[in-house]
Order: sequence, then structure tokens, then C-alpha cells
Amino acid sequence: MVSIPRGFRDFPPPIMILRKKILGKIEDVFKRYGFDPFETPALEYWETVKGKLGEEAEGRLMFIFPDFFSKEWYTLRYELTFPLARYIAMHPDTPLPFKRYHIGRVWRHEEPQRGRYREFWQCDADIVGSPYPEADAEVISVNIDVMRAFDFENFTVRINDRRLLTGIFEEELGISNPLPIYRAIDKLDKVGEEGVRAELSRLGLHGPLVGRVMELISTRGDFSELRHSYEGFENERIKAALGHLEEIFSIISDDRLVLDLSLVRGLEYYTGPVFETSVSEPRIGSLAGGGRYDKLIALYSGRDTPATGISIGVERLIDAGLELGLFDLIERSYNEVFVVSVRRESWRYAWRVASALRKGGVNASLDLMRRSQSSQREYANKIGVKVIAFVGPSEEETETVTLYSKDIRKTVRISEVVSSVRELLSLS
Amino acid sequence: MVSIPRGFRDFPPPIMILRKKILGKIEDVFKRYGFDPFETPALEYWETVKGKLGEEAEGRLMFIFPDFFSKEWYTLRYELTFPLARYIAMHPDTPLPFKRYHIGRVWRHEEPQRGRYREFWQCDADIVGSPYPEADAEVISVNIDVMRAFDFENFTVRINDRRLLTGIFEEELGISNPLPIYRAIDKLDKVGEEGVRAELSRLGLHGPLVGRVMELISTRGDFSELRHSYEGFENERIKAALGHLEEIFSIISDDRLVLDLSLVRGLEYYTGPVFETSVSEPRIGSLAGGGRYDKLIALYSGRDTPATGISIGVERLIDAGLELGLFDLIERSYNEVFVVSVRRESWRYAWRVASALRKGGVNASLDLMRRSQSSQREYANKIGVKVIAFVGPSEEETETVTLYSKDIRKTVRISEVVSSVRELLSLS
Repeated sequence: MVSIPRGFRDFPPPIMILRKKILGKIEDVFKRYGFDPFETPALEYWETVKGKLGEEAEGRLMFIFPDFFSKEWYTLRYELTFPLARYIAMHPDTPLPFKRYHIGRVWRHEEPQRGRYREFWQCDADIVGSPYPEADAEVISVNIDVMRAFDFENFTVRINDRRLLTGIFEEELGISNPLPIYRAIDKLDKVGEEGVRAELSRLGLHGPLVGRVMELISTRGDFSELRHSYEGFENERIKAALGHLEEIFSIISDDRLVLDLSLVRGLEYYTGPVFETSVSEPRIGSLAGGGRYDKLIALYSGRDTPATGISIGVERLIDAGLELGLFDLIERSYNEVFVVSVRRESWRYAWRVASALRKGGVNASLDLMRRSQSSQREYANKIGVKVIAFVGPSEEETETVTLYSKDIRKTVRISEVVSSVRELLSLS
Repeated sequence: MVSIPRGFRDFPPPIMILRKKILGKIEDVFKRYGFDPFETPALEYWETVKGKLGEEAEGRLMFIFPDFFSKEWYTLRYELTFPLARYIAMHPDTPLPFKRYHIGRVWRHEEPQRGRYREFWQCDADIVGSPYPEADAEVISVNIDVMRAFDFENFTVRINDRRLLTGIFEEELGISNPLPIYRAIDKLDKVGEEGVRAELSRLGLHGPLVGRVMELISTRGDFSELRHSYEGFENERIKAALGHLEEIFSIISDDRLVLDLSLVRGLEYYTGPVFETSVSEPRIGSLAGGGRYDKLIALYSGRDTPATGISIGVERLIDAGLELGLFDLIERSYNEVFVVSVRRESWRYAWRVASALRKGGVNASLDLMRRSQSSQREYANKIGVKVIAFVGPSEEETETVTLYSKDIRKTVRISEVVSSVRELLSLS
């Protein structure tokens, strides 16, 4: 049996080249905002995670397994925030704010389907230490800049606040078992207003309450236009949320950012603002999301440590960008030059030319299969090399190289081969 | 319990910054030689690997565990060559030669000790498809260039050939159970000539044979000087090995490359040339190694597919470079500028300055903790920022920024802040 585990993927060069380009751009934005690189193990002790990630993750989605040689149980990293919290608890002297980014694999025992894998990459930027809206604004701004870096046009960052939800639904509207209600309203984008309305009735909400809930959640827009909807409430949580959101909106001041009371997202986890980014086309779900989690680190350290962060869902971002034509798989190799040895006797000279190119910083290959001239050329075209360098007895004698790129052909001295190739590459 | 699994490591920013620099340099060399990026899953089906990696790996070192939801068993990737072989078997239409590099984590249930971890990185470059010495020469040349890229001075690439070992020890000297003999001679560097001599006698080799073996293995040097030692043998394997090695030496022609009959390395795996790179100081073992494995891919595909490759042991390379002072952990952050808001009211202007810097490609942070001016400065120094930008009421009024870097202080217009910062960074 030769197979790859279900839900896992190999990444051949054309896909890797695209992925590296995309991850590199995301990393650049993280760096511009002063985030620093950080990595943690693929495995954590199950003991360290147990009871903190919720029933669905722990009972169904996490890879959990015993160590053969000790009594320990391991778990494969499920996401990148918990390892950060563990790290902060273990390193209480870390200067705060700690602004780290982490680009890495996570593993979930999902049922594989289009766009959903058992091994996928997350790109997280988090700020540990600041309880202030400035920090939330910074990670949201990172998110907006990432979307702009890829030329996504029709994207929206929806924002809500956990305290707004609790304050309105639990404290003001008196809903005592809010979890199913939150799940229902979170589906607004998927099932539409009528769907949510039906679900709320099914859950036993009386008519006027359903109406009130629908009124609250079905408006989206700029904070200053919407805040009046909540001004009737004299509730501390609601006030705290509104104050926090107001500052975020005034720092960001970008009409991509909209208030949306139907956004729920990761209830067990978040304590303040939550946000999610999606594009209007393709309808692929959210491309990024995050929020504030002021209580998570204390689960490990015992010390309250506020934190906020954003996670870019790079798999969906790639799928969306490919569908929109923002990305392509045209670049199949980093090879810039293939040095064809016209005859077998010219191979040593081809090696000399390839060495000169490599020393000059040009990515170059040459024949390793003792092939004919035409087979070498065919291979070079197959892997997508932009410039072909020919060397035969006459080139060797005159210490020259004959370069081909598209319809240009020129013979240059070996001492000039690097600059000539660079010129051809800049034209192609 | 808050702990990190034994033998696993977190990588905070200063270590990550160094690791990324080092991995980036290795990757650059791989790219120069025309290798393309490639990745495979962290998990493989145990079924796919079983019986191919040898007793020590499979019985003791591999992480092997069951899937909770199916009858499958998984294994964590033990090294990067087997996944390549599986990939080639599953994609028989891959254009050959397939030159791929793979930089990634592998997992081994080792007893943790200095320089030995249960999770570590390998950097592999392999050429699939070519049976010729040109391919071996290319990966050895990659290895030499990597060592030079890091300014390692006293390094040696030792080379041997599996067929030379078999031909001499088994066929010519008639040693019928050669494995313990190979293990004994492989220890030459560790235990010295007397140690190997004693071990060979203990293994039952008679005196003259011990002398003959010692004579063969205790000379190292250039191929042309040593080949006469083997010219007495009229053995097909030895001849094939000598022919192959002669071509490699003539292509590389670098006195870092030495023939060494005591080099054994991964017997179950290699079929031709094997090589290993080490530095004379520190005595830390090999920093890189590889060889030709013409039979491995056929284990999966059934089709003979020759291949050769090099693996850079980046953990040891980092340890050696730190000990030799070639690397340091001085760079603690990618942050280039910290924008200090002199008063709280200046924060919005500080955000504007930070945004201008970020748009201009400069990595910038600003206060997120509502700290005093001096605390902001203290934090900026702690994380190692090179330029501090001060903004207060007077800067805001005049749309300027006051920049400090070492003993230089200058006030510039916000429109010039990017170029002024770049100038200061180039001086620091």
C-alpha cells in the first residue's frame, strides 16, 4: 500500500512556490507591524491542554495518543494560541507587550472535504499584555493590510464584542440559556433572516422577543450609525463594549470595518471584541478571524494577562485568491537558467558556466542525465526555465555562452554571463 | 501541570530570528543549484513506512500511534527521504531529474541530551532520476557551498562508496559477517586506531587481516593519491566505485573533499557514494551527510529509480556556529523603530507616524500599554529597537518626528520619516 494519509497533502514545487509567496507576504505585514517570529512544538502534553479547548475539539477533532515509553499522552497542536498561553505562563519575565507571529501547521481530525484538511497552516499575530482597544485596532489593521496586500477587493471585517452579546441577550433580554440562541444568530449569513427567525421560534422565543433580536442583529454598518440602537441599555457590560468598540472604530476609520451583532465566534474563548473577515465572492466562509481573550493565559499562569490576536486562514485565502484569479500556479520552478551541453564533451564547461551563474546569485541547473541536446531543452521547458544557455565546442573555445530567452539570442563572454542573464530575466 | 514535552523546544524571537537567517541561507544555496521547494505531511501511514527504516528506528525511535476513528496507524515523519520516495511512487509522471529541497521538522523518540532533541529540523536536497556521478557531485557541491556560506573554515567532506566497502571487505578479504566490522571501523574518529584495532581483534579477525583493514582505513586524502591502494583488486564492485568516485573528485576538485574508507554511514539505505561533513572544532559529530540510494524508491514504486541527496543537520550546524562565534543571538526583534508618544494625547499622531513607516516598508511599533514616555523608551531598548521616534504636541503641530539613534538626534517632516529612518538604520 502506497498512500498519503486521508486529509493530508503533498506540496510539489508549483504549489510550494505559490504558498511561500503568499506566506511571505503575510509575514511581511506581520513584521511591518512589529510582530516577531515564534514557534512551538508540534506536540503538546495532553494534560496541559485537557479541559481548555471545548468538547468538540477534545472529544472529536484533536489527535491524542500515548507515548510508547512513558505514561504521558501527547496531542498534536490543534491551534496556535494555546501554545502561546503555555509559553507565557512558563516565561513570566517576557517583556510585555509580547507581539509574536506564528506561521505553522495545525492538525484536526476533520472529515476531509473541499478546502478542509486534517493538516493545515495558520498564520497568527497576537499581542499579549495590553487590555486596550489600541491593541485590538492593531491586529485588525494587520488583517486589513493582509487583505489589501493580496488585492482582495470586496472584503469586510465584521466586528462584535462578547460583552455586547452577554449584556444584551442575557442581562437585558433575560435569555437564560443563550448558547443555542447565539448559534442560531451566528448562522445569519448561511440561512438568512427567515432561517434565523424560524430557528429562534423553534428554540421557544416568543414573537416580540424574536422581533427584537432580529432587529438588533440584522443591521450592519459603521459604529457611529449603529450605536444609538444600544443606547437605551444602561448596562455596565454593554457600556464597556461600546466604549472599547468606539475607540477601535476611531483608530481604524476604514469602511471595511463594520459592526455586526450577529457575529458570535468562539464563545468559550473570547472576552471582548471578536472579528471575522470574509469576501463577498467566492462564498467560502471567513478568511481570517480573531478577538480578545483576557482570561486564557490565566488558565495556565494564574495571573490575569490580557491578550488579543488575529488568525489568517491561509488555506481558504489561497482557495479564494485562486478562484478570483489573484493567484496562479504559473511559476513551476525557481530555476532561472538551464545550461545545455551541446555535446557530452562540453559538460565540464557547462558545469563551469553553471558555477559562475550560481556564484553570481542566479538559480541554475545543467544536464545530469547525459541526455541529447534536444532532450535537455525539452526538460528545461517542461520545468519552466526562462533562459536557456547553450555551450558547445565553439563556446568553450571562445569562453562564451549562447543565451536564449523567448525570441532573443545572444552570445556573451562567460565573465558577463551573470549580468546578461539578469538582463534577459528582467525582460521576460 | 504546565510544561513542554520532554525533548521539545519553544523558539522565542531571538532564536527564531537566528534560525530563519540560517535556514534562509541554506535555502538560498539550494535554490542556486536549481532545487525547488517541496513539502509532505507530518504524518504518514505506518503501513507505508513499516519494514523500510530498520530495527532501531521502527522499534525504538519512531512515534507510532493509532487513529481514534479508523483502523489506521500513523507515524510522525522520521526523516525526509521516505516521504520523497512515496511521492515519486505516487506521481510516476514527475519530470526527471526531480531536484527538490525540503526543510522541515522530523520526530524521533531519542533520549534528550545536549544537541539531541525529539523534534528537530532537517534540510535536505535530493536529485531523483540520475544514476551518474554528476548528480552526486552536485549535492556534494551544495554541501560545500553551505559550509562556505557560513564561513566554516576547518571543515572536511569525507566520501566513501558502499560498493568499495562490500567489494573490499566482503568479496576480497572474505569477511562473511561484515556488519560488526563496519560498525567498528566507523568509530575510527571516536575511539582512534588502537580502539578500532582492539575491537577488530575482539570480533575474531586474525592479526594480518586486522593489519590489512587498518592499513586500508587509516589513510585519508585525495582520490588520485589513494586510488593505487585499491588497484590490486580486480573486482567489479570496486571498479564501479572507483570509476564513480574518480568522476566526482574530478568535477569537485576541492581539497575539502577526501576519500575515507572508514566512513560507513547508514548501511541499509545507501547503494553507492556516501559522504559526511564535519568540522575539526568543535568536535560535535557530522554537520551534514548523504549518499546515493538507488533502490529505495523501487520499494514503493517497483521501478528502479536512482537517487542521491544531502541532508544538512541544522541543529548541530547552529550549535557549532554559535560555539565558533560565527552566529550570535544579538538581534532580538525585527522591530526597527519604536514610536514613543510623549503624552497620551499624542498617541493618534504616533499611530499616523507608525502607519507612514509601515507603509514605507519599515517595521514599527508604538505604545499599546498607555505607558509613560520613559517606560516606552525602556521597553523599546529592552526589545532592541534601533531607532526611537518621539512625537509630542510640538511634533504634531509641525507634522514632524524627532528621531534618536545612538548619539544622533534629528527632527524631520513626517513626509521624510521613511527615508530618514532608512538612513539611520544604514548607519547603525
